[in-house]
Amino acid sequence: MNASPKPIRVAMLGCGTVGSQVMRILHEQGDDLAARIGAPVELTGVAVRRPNRHPDVPAQLLTTDAEALVASDVDVVIEVIGGIDPARGLLVSALSKGKSVVSANKALLAEHAADLFAAAESSGADLYFEAAVAGAIPLVRPLRESLAGDRINRVMGIVNGTTNFILSAMDATGASYAETLDEASRLGYAEADPTADVDGYDAASKAAILASIAFHTRVTAADVYREGIAAVTPADIAAAKTLGRTIKLLAICERIGNDGGGSVAVRVHPAMIPRTHPLASVGGAFNAVFVEADAAGSLMFYGQGAGGAPTASAVLGDLVAVARNKVSGGRGPGESSYAALPIQPIAKVNTRYHISLDVADRAGVLSSVASVFAEHDVSIAAVRQQGRGTDASLVIVTHYAPDEALRSTVDKVAGLPSVHEVASVMRVEGESP
Amino acid sequence: MNASPKPIRVAMLGCGTVGSQVMRILHEQGDDLAARIGAPVELTGVAVRRPNRHPDVPAQLLTTDAEALVASDVDVVIEVIGGIDPARGLLVSALSKGKSVVSANKALLAEHAADLFAAAESSGADLYFEAAVAGAIPLVRPLRESLAGDRINRVMGIVNGTTNFILSAMDATGASYAETLDEASRLGYAEADPTADVDGYDAASKAAILASIAFHTRVTAADVYREGIAAVTPADIAAAKTLGRTIKLLAICERIGNDGGGSVAVRVHPAMIPRTHPLASVGGAFNAVFVEADAAGSLMFYGQGAGGAPTASAVLGDLVAVARNKVSGGRGPGESSYAALPIQPIAKVNTRYHISLDVADRAGVLSSVASVFAEHDVSIAAVRQQGRGTDASLVIVTHYAPDEALRSTVDKVAGLPSVHEVASVMRVEGESP
Repeated sequence: MNASPKPIRVAMLGCGTVGSQVMRILHEQGDDLAARIGAPVELTGVAVRRPNRHPDVPAQLLTTDAEALVASDVDVVIEVIGGIDPARGLLVSALSKGKSVVSANKALLAEHAADLFAAAESSGADLYFEAAVAGAIPLVRPLRESLAGDRINRVMGIVNGTTNFILSAMDATGASYAETLDEASRLGYAEADPTADVDGYDAASKAAILASIAFHTRVTAADVYREGIAAVTPADIAAAKTLGRTIKLLAICERIGNDGGGSVAVRVHPAMIPRTHPLASVGGAFNAVFVEADAAGSLMFYGQGAGGAPTASAVLGDLVAVARNKVSGGRGPGESSYAALPIQPIAKVNTRYHISLDVADRAGVLSSVASVFAEHDVSIAAVRQQGRGTDASLVIVTHYAPDEALRSTVDKVAGLPSVHEVASVMRVEGESP
Repeated sequence: MNASPKPIRVAMLGCGTVGSQVMRILHEQGDDLAARIGAPVELTGVAVRRPNRHPDVPAQLLTTDAEALVASDVDVVIEVIGGIDPARGLLVSALSKGKSVVSANKALLAEHAADLFAAAESSGADLYFEAAVAGAIPLVRPLRESLAGDRINRVMGIVNGTTNFILSAMDATGASYAETLDEASRLGYAEADPTADVDGYDAASKAAILASIAFHTRVTAADVYREGIAAVTPADIAAAKTLGRTIKLLAICERIGNDGGGSVAVRVHPAMIPRTHPLASVGGAFNAVFVEADAAGSLMFYGQGAGGAPTASAVLGDLVAVARNKVSGGRGPGESSYAALPIQPIAKVNTRYHISLDVADRAGVLSSVASVFAEHDVSIAAVRQQGRGTDASLVIVTHYAPDEALRSTVDKVAGLPSVHEVASVMRVEGESP
């Protein structure tokens, strides 16, 4: 126990929604953090693009020269700028020089984690990124550390608040996707350019990070099969309701096969889940993630997945950890990618489909539809036909089958003369087959 | 990167339900664990009382001399014997000699954490105990590490599976506590001597551990206010149902007051919660814990709170962590008790009561009851009176008031001539006042 320990010198890159909350908490709870770390934290600089937009930050801390700040005498670099460049170069430079990094940058971690870890490894620095996935919810640390003695088989969850808000609202009102997106933008739940959220890129980045650490392998955003929510229709929502289900955008990371061999499949797409499933009641901007492991069984983690203060909580938890390591001379976990599992393409992944058809209401229709399923070796779990005068609604839920077989089945069924329209096609998750 | 790193030598104390699962996983997943740690794990000995009861353990590993095993050339001691003695002396001895300890012993950690941490501090050893609270659910690490940069205000949850099973069954069947306990024993959900569970000792130990790490202060089992479930009656369960509530045994850790001063209150008791509360649907042997922090907001952790394999998962996660620290020369977090908060006795803690009375059905009864509440400065949130011929049922839910004021109110009300019986008194949690 050192009587007056050397302060931990911290530089911050970026000072937006998350960065300003990090500064606030550092200021308000500096004494607590010092007691927990065993040394005080000294913020030595904040790199921003436009210093005049940060009147709350002491002027002597502000700089536009992020490179010089990273190269200066600091122990830890907090990165909250987001995006690939210039964050990537700055963090590789910091890590190579032995400065530990705390990053909230999901896009960067999902694409270039290997480079960052290599730089950290070369100097013995720490790389922590709890804030990159699901905001305040502890997920990276439980997967990297708490479950390090177990075999994780599946990670499934809601990891994007914007799409969850939109789907929850569509479910509640029956409104269209476009109307609901407008509403979400007005309320501040969707960005001016919502592409990253609604097209699933944000969730795909998080899924890549979760899969990498859960399965001890490398998964990048490009390995993730991705469908956004723009194609979800009121008809899909209505079809789900009829069956006691709701639609959520899920990120699903699976280990396929086991014991050394096997592969990994990672996907982000809307799916129907039973209304009784714990994920069904996760509303608005909340996130929740299920983890299934051999010994631990099923675990669920729930909380605020975004926002300035929750994300800052995760950043500061990591700051305390890397600062403690600096004080004690230790190191956090490095990259663990020894399993080196191949990626299973979505075509080969076993999924289940819910298919809602408008068909002619006459004899032989069900038989012709069913024969297409049989032809593709797709087994039907449930069927419901309801006449509506001259036409009928035919709803089919399949058993598990390779996704490509399910797709081919739907394509072929859509071309049958007795099928007027494929009203809704949606994968089904979260229930026993 | 060492080409052939020195193995991490591990001794295990105890080999019951948890220990045998630890051995199984060490055996089945040894290569994975070695890859994650950066060194192989070598189990050098298992101390048990009766070696002939462990035919599955290689004979050369078994010993009855736990002291000699702890004193031998090992890096890590896993303790899964439980109870205070001899575990306490063995672990203090191990830690003093620089051997890191992974313990699943809630009773020991809840009473003697300070001694253990002091021994660890003296030698620079690690003390990890994720398995001591809520089995496989990552809670100790998220509180000690993930939320180390935040201010935790409240921890509330279901942390005992046996009582949760019994209360869930009483709610489902309407049967008495005694009948349901018998059933739980028959099904193996309750121990032959269920005292530690049903009287709340087990939950109180876990609450003490959670409060200590959440609030950076020392809380021992003796500081925890404790009521078990033996006094919960079918009338209580019925009263809860009528109001859309259910009864759960809750562990509640609260920080009272803020910013440096303040105090901490820790309690375990049955409470009514709304059926819509996420904890209400936690059934059977599952555990779930809510954590509320300033910046992170509300978080929930859910999973299997007990059992051999889930608890072994937590033990092995800790083993990987302390072994990594041995390899990297680092250290995990030590004791963090700098806040040194005083304990608030239950009498002074603000709670809410649900009170169900059988009263005479005549004018003036409500007025005489209400005046007792007013006298004690207890504000009434809701009241419902229902005539049943000559007598009536009167249900009162209070606002928050000091627990001692609520108790005095109930005592005085019970003595009113117009009150025939106090049918049910139960604290209310999990809803806005």
